[in-house]
Amino acid sequence: MEADKYVYSFGAGAAEGNKTMKDLLGGKGANLAEMSAIGLPIPPGFTISAEVCQYYNQHEKEWPDGVKEQVEQNIAQLEELMGLKFGDTDDPLLVSVRSGAAVSMPGMMDTVLNLGLNDRSVQGLAQKTGNERFAYDCYRRFIDMFGNVVMSIGHELFEEVLQELKDEQNVKLDTELEVPELKELVARYKTVYRNHTGHEFPQEPKDQLRHAINAVLGSWNTQRAQTYRKINRITGLLGTAANVQVMVFGNMGAESATGVCFTRNPADGTNELYGEFLVNAQGEDVVAGIRTPRNISELKDDMPKSYQELLNVTRQLEEHYHDMQDIEFTIQEGKLYILQTRNGKRTGAAAVKIAVDMVEEQLIAKEKAVLNLVEPTHLDQLLHPQLNQSEYSDGEILGEGLPASPGAAVGKVVFSSEKAEEEHKKGEPVILVRVETSPEDVGGMSAAEGILTSRGGMTSHAAVVARGWGKPCVAGCTDIAIDYEALLFTSDGNTIKEGDWISIDGAKGIVIKGKKEVEEPSFGSSYYTFMGWVDELRDMEVRTNADTPDDAVRALEFGAQGIGLARTEHMFFGEERVTAMRRMILSENKDERAKALEELLPYQKQDFMDIFEAMEGRPVTIRLLDPPLHEFLPDEEEGVRALAGELGISFQNLKQKIRVLKEFNPMLGHRGCRLGITHPEITEMQTHAVLSAAVHLKKDGREVKPEIMVPLVGTSEEFMHQHEVIDRVAAKVFNNEGEAIAYKVGTMIEIPRAAIVADKIAAEADFFSFGTNDLTQMTFGYSRDDAGKFLESYQEKGILKADPFQILDEEGVGALVKMATEKGRTVKKDLKIGICGEHGGDPASVRFCYQLGLNYVSCSPYRVPVARLAAAQARLQSQDNVRQK
Amino acid sequence: MEADKYVYSFGAGAAEGNKTMKDLLGGKGANLAEMSAIGLPIPPGFTISAEVCQYYNQHEKEWPDGVKEQVEQNIAQLEELMGLKFGDTDDPLLVSVRSGAAVSMPGMMDTVLNLGLNDRSVQGLAQKTGNERFAYDCYRRFIDMFGNVVMSIGHELFEEVLQELKDEQNVKLDTELEVPELKELVARYKTVYRNHTGHEFPQEPKDQLRHAINAVLGSWNTQRAQTYRKINRITGLLGTAANVQVMVFGNMGAESATGVCFTRNPADGTNELYGEFLVNAQGEDVVAGIRTPRNISELKDDMPKSYQELLNVTRQLEEHYHDMQDIEFTIQEGKLYILQTRNGKRTGAAAVKIAVDMVEEQLIAKEKAVLNLVEPTHLDQLLHPQLNQSEYSDGEILGEGLPASPGAAVGKVVFSSEKAEEEHKKGEPVILVRVETSPEDVGGMSAAEGILTSRGGMTSHAAVVARGWGKPCVAGCTDIAIDYEALLFTSDGNTIKEGDWISIDGAKGIVIKGKKEVEEPSFGSSYYTFMGWVDELRDMEVRTNADTPDDAVRALEFGAQGIGLARTEHMFFGEERVTAMRRMILSENKDERAKALEELLPYQKQDFMDIFEAMEGRPVTIRLLDPPLHEFLPDEEEGVRALAGELGISFQNLKQKIRVLKEFNPMLGHRGCRLGITHPEITEMQTHAVLSAAVHLKKDGREVKPEIMVPLVGTSEEFMHQHEVIDRVAAKVFNNEGEAIAYKVGTMIEIPRAAIVADKIAAEADFFSFGTNDLTQMTFGYSRDDAGKFLESYQEKGILKADPFQILDEEGVGALVKMATEKGRTVKKDLKIGICGEHGGDPASVRFCYQLGLNYVSCSPYRVPVARLAAAQARLQSQDNVRQK
Repeated sequence: MEADKYVYSFGAGAAEGNKTMKDLLGGKGANLAEMSAIGLPIPPGFTISAEVCQYYNQHEKEWPDGVKEQVEQNIAQLEELMGLKFGDTDDPLLVSVRSGAAVSMPGMMDTVLNLGLNDRSVQGLAQKTGNERFAYDCYRRFIDMFGNVVMSIGHELFEEVLQELKDEQNVKLDTELEVPELKELVARYKTVYRNHTGHEFPQEPKDQLRHAINAVLGSWNTQRAQTYRKINRITGLLGTAANVQVMVFGNMGAESATGVCFTRNPADGTNELYGEFLVNAQGEDVVAGIRTPRNISELKDDMPKSYQELLNVTRQLEEHYHDMQDIEFTIQEGKLYILQTRNGKRTGAAAVKIAVDMVEEQLIAKEKAVLNLVEPTHLDQLLHPQLNQSEYSDGEILGEGLPASPGAAVGKVVFSSEKAEEEHKKGEPVILVRVETSPEDVGGMSAAEGILTSRGGMTSHAAVVARGWGKPCVAGCTDIAIDYEALLFTSDGNTIKEGDWISIDGAKGIVIKGKKEVEEPSFGSSYYTFMGWVDELRDMEVRTNADTPDDAVRALEFGAQGIGLARTEHMFFGEERVTAMRRMILSENKDERAKALEELLPYQKQDFMDIFEAMEGRPVTIRLLDPPLHEFLPDEEEGVRALAGELGISFQNLKQKIRVLKEFNPMLGHRGCRLGITHPEITEMQTHAVLSAAVHLKKDGREVKPEIMVPLVGTSEEFMHQHEVIDRVAAKVFNNEGEAIAYKVGTMIEIPRAAIVADKIAAEADFFSFGTNDLTQMTFGYSRDDAGKFLESYQEKGILKADPFQILDEEGVGALVKMATEKGRTVKKDLKIGICGEHGGDPASVRFCYQLGLNYVSCSPYRVPVARLAAAQARLQSQDNVRQK
Repeated sequence: MEADKYVYSFGAGAAEGNKTMKDLLGGKGANLAEMSAIGLPIPPGFTISAEVCQYYNQHEKEWPDGVKEQVEQNIAQLEELMGLKFGDTDDPLLVSVRSGAAVSMPGMMDTVLNLGLNDRSVQGLAQKTGNERFAYDCYRRFIDMFGNVVMSIGHELFEEVLQELKDEQNVKLDTELEVPELKELVARYKTVYRNHTGHEFPQEPKDQLRHAINAVLGSWNTQRAQTYRKINRITGLLGTAANVQVMVFGNMGAESATGVCFTRNPADGTNELYGEFLVNAQGEDVVAGIRTPRNISELKDDMPKSYQELLNVTRQLEEHYHDMQDIEFTIQEGKLYILQTRNGKRTGAAAVKIAVDMVEEQLIAKEKAVLNLVEPTHLDQLLHPQLNQSEYSDGEILGEGLPASPGAAVGKVVFSSEKAEEEHKKGEPVILVRVETSPEDVGGMSAAEGILTSRGGMTSHAAVVARGWGKPCVAGCTDIAIDYEALLFTSDGNTIKEGDWISIDGAKGIVIKGKKEVEEPSFGSSYYTFMGWVDELRDMEVRTNADTPDDAVRALEFGAQGIGLARTEHMFFGEERVTAMRRMILSENKDERAKALEELLPYQKQDFMDIFEAMEGRPVTIRLLDPPLHEFLPDEEEGVRALAGELGISFQNLKQKIRVLKEFNPMLGHRGCRLGITHPEITEMQTHAVLSAAVHLKKDGREVKPEIMVPLVGTSEEFMHQHEVIDRVAAKVFNNEGEAIAYKVGTMIEIPRAAIVADKIAAEADFFSFGTNDLTQMTFGYSRDDAGKFLESYQEKGILKADPFQILDEEGVGALVKMATEKGRTVKKDLKIGICGEHGGDPASVRFCYQLGLNYVSCSPYRVPVARLAAAQARLQSQDNVRQK
């Protein structure tokens, strides 16, 4: 039986894989294959599929049958294609080994370069290049990298030896070392290797290759890789692929260079090459941020032909991939090679501008722009606050760096990720200040409001990760000097200690002393063009959760099409109101209660009039009083004493009453429609307020669409009871006012039982709105206020993939949402159904709601644009063929 | 088009209905038809179906089309059959109008006798009977009854007029009034009638009949009828039927009598006629308890022929109905008429004895005895405590009355139902003491531990209702004199005030001063015979919830087949244990915690050894620690201070720690397997204790079947995590002990989400056990501790039919139980599934579990016999043909 195919070749204008095979070949491998097939200049090679990684990590580091043979066969093929020999003394084949999973994980996986060098082939390399110094420099780098990445020997052990040798030679720079010293260095490096591993540095290239491939496969499961996947919620992948590719050298002299670049500006979207390069360097030097690289535009002067070639390639890539690309390239003695391409990470502003520009350049269709070029989180970033320039003087500027990721952040300085996480847990906003960041820092970066580094470029680790998260970042700010020991940084005479406040502007790259005010962002014309397309391509409504006219106005600006949840309880906390509310709660009898409610009525009516007016005829869903009544009562002795005085009753008496109202599990207690049923007068007052406000506006010639929503219904009988009260009061109000108005009466579906009997409830209801916060609490049996104690541990242990209060649990809670939707629509085909829990603004949850056929999602005002985009994308995803161009 | 049939005739050896038509004709009507068909001597008549009642109450007191004509036609038929005329001056037809629903509701519905009398027909009656005094006495009783029942005129208004007349005539007894005075009384009654209603007493018999029928139909919806149905959970009926029947007279002289009797003794089951009669009286006199009637055995001497006839009829009825019967009869001038038969209410002891006797007499088959002759609640009664005779002296006996309903009750004296309910709500046990009870008292009777009346017989309202509920009752205790005004009763020099303690023995009919100890009941041989049949006919297992060896032993006596739920947390409350437990909870780190757990281990191990030993090889399901840890910590300052001393930490420090552990909603907090996951060392210790105890016993040659149950699982990942911990510890224990034992690992299904993903969980689990307490809490979103505030109101308003914590909510919670069972069995066909919530002992819920195919129910020890019977009945009900005989 022939073994399964695990290894895919590419190069010389052909390839066994293509860009659709990311799951198997990883993003890098699939794109190398694709680029090879479309004739781009890439060094040939092959990709070992992610299935091998999965097998390797599940079978005690064994390869599946056939991999060994397929690798050997491919090496032979490369030797033939290049006319080189692995380990050859004359003309050796050298390769790189790189990781690459289906989802890009910058800096997470390990890479080995120059593989194939040994004591013999280094001579071959010297001979072939006519550059003995170059050859031995490659060799010593290879031993260092191989020792570090494959054998886990600390890089600093090699650095120490290097420093020793430089001291002996009395030189400062690596480049000052001559061939004999480099040969000596190779010998000493091999000693370091032997001392640490207990065996000699492997001379057989095939052994080197096997070890290197294993290191790539194993790096999938390192702690830092796992952490990155957890933070980024990357699940369901097989593992990483391993790419073996013929080496090309950016460090072969002044006609050689290496660089990374974006086909457009990833910070603001401008259509221009954007990136960095280093002459006479290997690629890792750029990404690692060790040498500060030069701007890509300067390449035009240095190597005009290569620059033009690069420009052509980038155009070809954009046309082929229909997206902005992030490229790694090397120029070896004047010849351009593309080492990698992938869709480039970008800021929200850039994403929107690129999407709009590409449509206008007729590179892509609107559908493609909406579906793929802007992520919901990009819009989130767009809504990031900015620093107001009038808030600070030039004298307060501590330094200028690269504008690595836009948005303003204000926080206390911390110098380590641990400290960042620690302070974040206490609720303190922090700015993480590091010389440079590494994958070990992702926890602290995630916890920080913003990131400031003193070294590294726009594509340094800090910059790439921060942009991906939409977190403000100023990178490579050489104006500051960090002292980790003393926990401070200095800048032109200023000393900023840990705990001091600073503000950073990631869009401008500025670092400012002190805690500055931030201002709301304003959107450019691209945003409006883009959101116009979003709305055009969207067929699910997006409403907002808003309790005040201000909220309503803001949400309208963000494109809300109505209010999906107006929480009336928030209206009872004003100074005069809460006293009447408390009097109502503490009433001894129905008459007293009625009197207190009468006091509240005019306030409620005014609230509703203001909201209706703000919404200009759009539907407004008003939820009847929901929380347990004791939430309105004071808790501390002082407050109780004051209230007792106000109400004219004794302290002891009031304390006793409050005690009686206290509940063991308020979440499962006397709240929601249970209040309206035991005290129908509350529902009566609220209905009165809603409908008389609506009638009042109608008389003024305004359009009003009130929808009254009964909370916490668990049985159809509860809903029917409240529906009757509402209809009775409505009839009375309309009769008194001499004017009627159409209104809807619906219910929250937030109790598991309501989902189960949704068909019975639907028979009586005009609409359903899923309250997924409570539904999640009760379906899981988690109190949102208490679950923190174990939810974190649950995620660490993999028991939960995500916090179900952030991302709707499709398997459990989602099954109830689905059940209720289906049952409800069985009885009432056109039943209007929406969602008004926090999940209404979460893109994955929005997609789930779309798939279930919900009519709308409702979320907080700031999430409205995100929900609009998520809704449009959900629709496009559900269609078989989305127009690309 | 012909109208639907609404009226069904019976009499003269024929009938249009039969005993299967109870839904339409009510129990009384169906049995009258049946008796007529089998040739028993019943007065002819007809039944207006319950559909008319439903229509009447839904259509503003209108009759459906056709009823009027069908009634008239039936009256004409009766006239022809009897050779009498409605309202005739010579030979008038007189009828009774009685209610009768499908389920017997004693005293709930209203009755009108002697209908058809008017100023003319009274003369006809006088002439026909040759007894003018009798005729006018009937007439004045009719006006009184019609006025009271149909026109809601207070009975006391007629009584006042009667008293006035007696005073005028200077006589004491009604019977001393002669014909002229009775005629005068009729006139004065008519005046009372006119003054109250504004119109004359209706002279037209058809009008009288129409009003009387309407009164019956309307009585279905009186407050007291609704209350009775609510307390007895009677739902789903159309309404009451109305029976119109030719009058026979027990009050036509010394050869006439009326009575009620049971075919066997309803208190102890003895096979003997049991009942009471009154010579020269109408039926209502017996039931109402106004005159104290004579024992049925005396009828043998008074009217030997009629007595023999009655004996024959009762035998025929038992053979026909296969059950003990409760009969109303009248002897009119020596001729026996049966007015009603129904299955007789009986005590638990009587039910079991009658069932066993009837099988042994070959009257019925075992299946019939188990299915129909004993209700689960009867067994409950059997388990009622009794007063220990050595506990009281004769001198303490306050009085003797009728042993109306067995069992001992001890409580504080109250004299009104309102007071009884009020005290009951406070948790105070009360004895309701009344001269006699009426349907208005059912609320108070339900709230009381026992009932004591000073008037009325074994079939008085108090006695019948109390027996139905299995509530101890002493009736007709003439030794006591009640003073409602002064709130006391006196008895031979003793004065007992409201709030004083008394004890009653409803089996002996004794009232004792003070608060006496009660003793557990012992079962007779009938019980064991009967339960033997129950077990023979049952195929669902019954286990018990038991946390101690004592519980386990008691449950075994009650027939438990294993432990379905052993709650380990109850084992941590002993004096020495709670300190170690608290130290564990307050540990700063894993080591401290491990040390505290080590201290707890020997206790846990001993507990499990004792329980395993008590269960003698039966399966024992042990639930891992479930409640939130702060439940083990002191709450009050004093306790906290003491604990701080014990633990050697400061009061403030401990207080702070306790505060941190407090939860907003502990029911939804850090408990159940969430504890075992965040602190696996707890699960480890418990598993260690369970399995080392099991191994220890196995080494002693005992059989042990441990089943470890993981609580509060919501995701399959949680269960897998705990399963791994258990298996790991098991391997270690077995290795250390050099002996292994088979054990099962299963889970509670008590979180709604667990029911939804039950298929995934089942793949990993050996068994499921439904924790319907928590499942009810979370499915409804009701905290059991807080829901009292609205659950009562919900039941009053009809929003809930029953307290879902008492009777499993089949529609909502039951749907999840069904879903989980089906999903679980899809993955694992033979998955063992049980229930261990409170519902495991509720007969209706047991039936539901049987229908779903559960393998066992588990309940508290005292409920085990009830569950065994309910399980057997569920199986018999599920079979098409149950052998009757």
